[in-house]
Amino acid sequence: MKILLLAGDGIGPEIMVEAEKVLTALALPVTLDRALVGGAAYAAAGHPLPPETLAKAKAADAILFGAVGDPRFDNVERHLRPEQAILGLRAELGLFANLRPAKMFAGLEDSSALRPEVASAIDLLIVRELNGDVYFGEKGTRTTADGQREGYDIMAYSENEVRRIAHVAFRAAQGRRGRLCSVDKANVLETSQLWRDVVIEVAADYPDVTLSHMYVDNAAMQLVRNPGQFDVVVTGNLFGDILSDQASMCVGSIGLLASASLSESTQGLYEPIHGSAPDIAGQGVANPLAMILSLAMLLRHSGGDEASAVRIEAAVAQVLADGCRGADLGGHMGTAALGDAVVAALNG
Amino acid sequence: MKILLLAGDGIGPEIMVEAEKVLTALALPVTLDRALVGGAAYAAAGHPLPPETLAKAKAADAILFGAVGDPRFDNVERHLRPEQAILGLRAELGLFANLRPAKMFAGLEDSSALRPEVASAIDLLIVRELNGDVYFGEKGTRTTADGQREGYDIMAYSENEVRRIAHVAFRAAQGRRGRLCSVDKANVLETSQLWRDVVIEVAADYPDVTLSHMYVDNAAMQLVRNPGQFDVVVTGNLFGDILSDQASMCVGSIGLLASASLSESTQGLYEPIHGSAPDIAGQGVANPLAMILSLAMLLRHSGGDEASAVRIEAAVAQVLADGCRGADLGGHMGTAALGDAVVAALNG
Ligand SMILES: CC(C)[C@H](C(=O)O)[C@@H](O)C(=O)O
Ligand SMILES: CC(C)[C@H](C(=O)O)[C@@H](O)C(=O)O
Repeated sequence: MKILLLAGDGIGPEIMVEAEKVLTALALPVTLDRALVGGAAYAAAGHPLPPETLAKAKAADAILFGAVGDPRFDNVERHLRPEQAILGLRAELGLFANLRPAKMFAGLEDSSALRPEVASAIDLLIVRELNGDVYFGEKGTRTTADGQREGYDIMAYSENEVRRIAHVAFRAAQGRRGRLCSVDKANVLETSQLWRDVVIEVAADYPDVTLSHMYVDNAAMQLVRNPGQFDVVVTGNLFGDILSDQASMCVGSIGLLASASLSESTQGLYEPIHGSAPDIAGQGVANPLAMILSLAMLLRHSGGDEASAVRIEAAVAQVLADGCRGADLGGHMGTAALGDAVVAALNG
Repeated sequence: MKILLLAGDGIGPEIMVEAEKVLTALALPVTLDRALVGGAAYAAAGHPLPPETLAKAKAADAILFGAVGDPRFDNVERHLRPEQAILGLRAELGLFANLRPAKMFAGLEDSSALRPEVASAIDLLIVRELNGDVYFGEKGTRTTADGQREGYDIMAYSENEVRRIAHVAFRAAQGRRGRLCSVDKANVLETSQLWRDVVIEVAADYPDVTLSHMYVDNAAMQLVRNPGQFDVVVTGNLFGDILSDQASMCVGSIGLLASASLSESTQGLYEPIHGSAPDIAGQGVANPLAMILSLAMLLRHSGGDEASAVRIEAAVAQVLADGCRGADLGGHMGTAALGDAVVAALNG
């Protein structure tokens, strides 16, 4: 398997080192390649997703992605900003299915802002559509009839886009507790009405899955009130962005959650759901566990190596159960020490 | 002052009765009128916002609004659904500024899903733009080049729309702790980029207010992690819908939060932020406190009667501090008993 490592900006390179340690410890038959992405690529090559990087990404079986984002480039033209690299990869590689699991780890119940009895019940999977919605519709600025500047972005979903993500979500629910909640804003948006209609059509193929629908405002409320009620949640690109970040914080730290972005093939991109955290970059204090758990998802979904994925996940759970904590969880362990602890747990 | 009472659907009529009790107890010189709205109006007159209701709304100094929404009409054509009534009133009356305060009440710290030390710090105001965004842009279904159904909605903000809501938010921050956080998704949306640019322009008029910016996904996370960090939050219609419902749940029950929807004049519409709750309608168990607190906001913003507003708010706080709880907060007091308790506290 050919894996492309895109470390990116901020804490990306530091946490990538720890994922590589884990990969080395597993001694798997993989070949590794590297390329620049995000602000690092813009600084070196004038574009956040240079052609060489994109070509390598297309040629790889899987991409392990750190993070992009660099405040130095917040004011360059939009299409040259670091974040465009991840949007570009999602679009160019057809990575339409973003899986964001959130589950409480044993020993972390007291780290969540939620009360322990509420937090401990969290075991959900957000399936976020990643190639459409208001992210990728026509957008720009124009002048209104009365001479005002106006910004606009077109939100849209076509039935085939909804259908393929719905199938991913229903299949995921079959492999879990059999419940799927589709989140939309069908009382206001035509995009959501079509979404809901198509999800209902697809449901006919999955009589073993219980489908429900929830408006996004209510979903944001229910994720605080009682997140344990959710099994699989399927939603569009924008609502998925908001709800998955919210869910991550319910688990205690955004430094613990991994994600997979999948295409129609087995090719995928795997990244922590946190960002580049420029405020703590270079200090060796970033939590590498989400990055390491992203590697586990890579081995599972693109490598077909469930055994190694489970080994990594068990090692991370062990390290947390043993009380290892980085600064994000009020502890003192640095990035490298946490990575070493995972490797020790893998071997022990 | 002429107040129009629009009780609406579900629990709307029950909780409206309790607000009227409070109004009667205050013996203020107001004239009351009533009209049908939402599903109730659709059932009686074939439209959720009949012309007579709209005319009365336009003629009123203030509107006290219960809730709309009735599952019996979920499948009628979109423009005839109960929710269209509230969207229509917001548009027709130019109610562009939605104020949604969220503050922890003494004695309710243990009712929040958040840990008490996190929840007790909540004292924020969400200022939501209510006349624009993807809610009111062109929308519909069309057929793509390859024959697929596609739903679309245009998201847009013009600079004057952003400017007037920004002024409301900056002034609100001046009257509070002097901090304003503008929430957008400027790393992806042109609508958000214009929003951010204009908010920064308006900030020049308010050197005494500290302005910050946050992406909406991060805001959803921070509202769970540490809601106490926020003073005033200003955001667009869609993000405001999601974040204000989320914030309400952090306070313990959505049955406690009121909102004001204001125009350029002193005319305004006041409503609980919860919905019509059809599942508990007619049982006399709905919490009337958000409705009663909406009346307080009405007297403050449209009536210029700060003293009566403060009296009502103090009475509600007293009732909660005394341990009065409805089913939403794990207690046994019904709708009427809670309303009576507020009246008793007012007089006592
Ligand atoms: C960086 C940004 C464009 C991105 C998104 O909004 O999708 C991020 O928030 C994410 O969720 O991966
Ligand atoms: C009923 C619905 C159209 C409405 C909205 O989305 O604005 C409601 O959720 C609200 O927040 O007042």
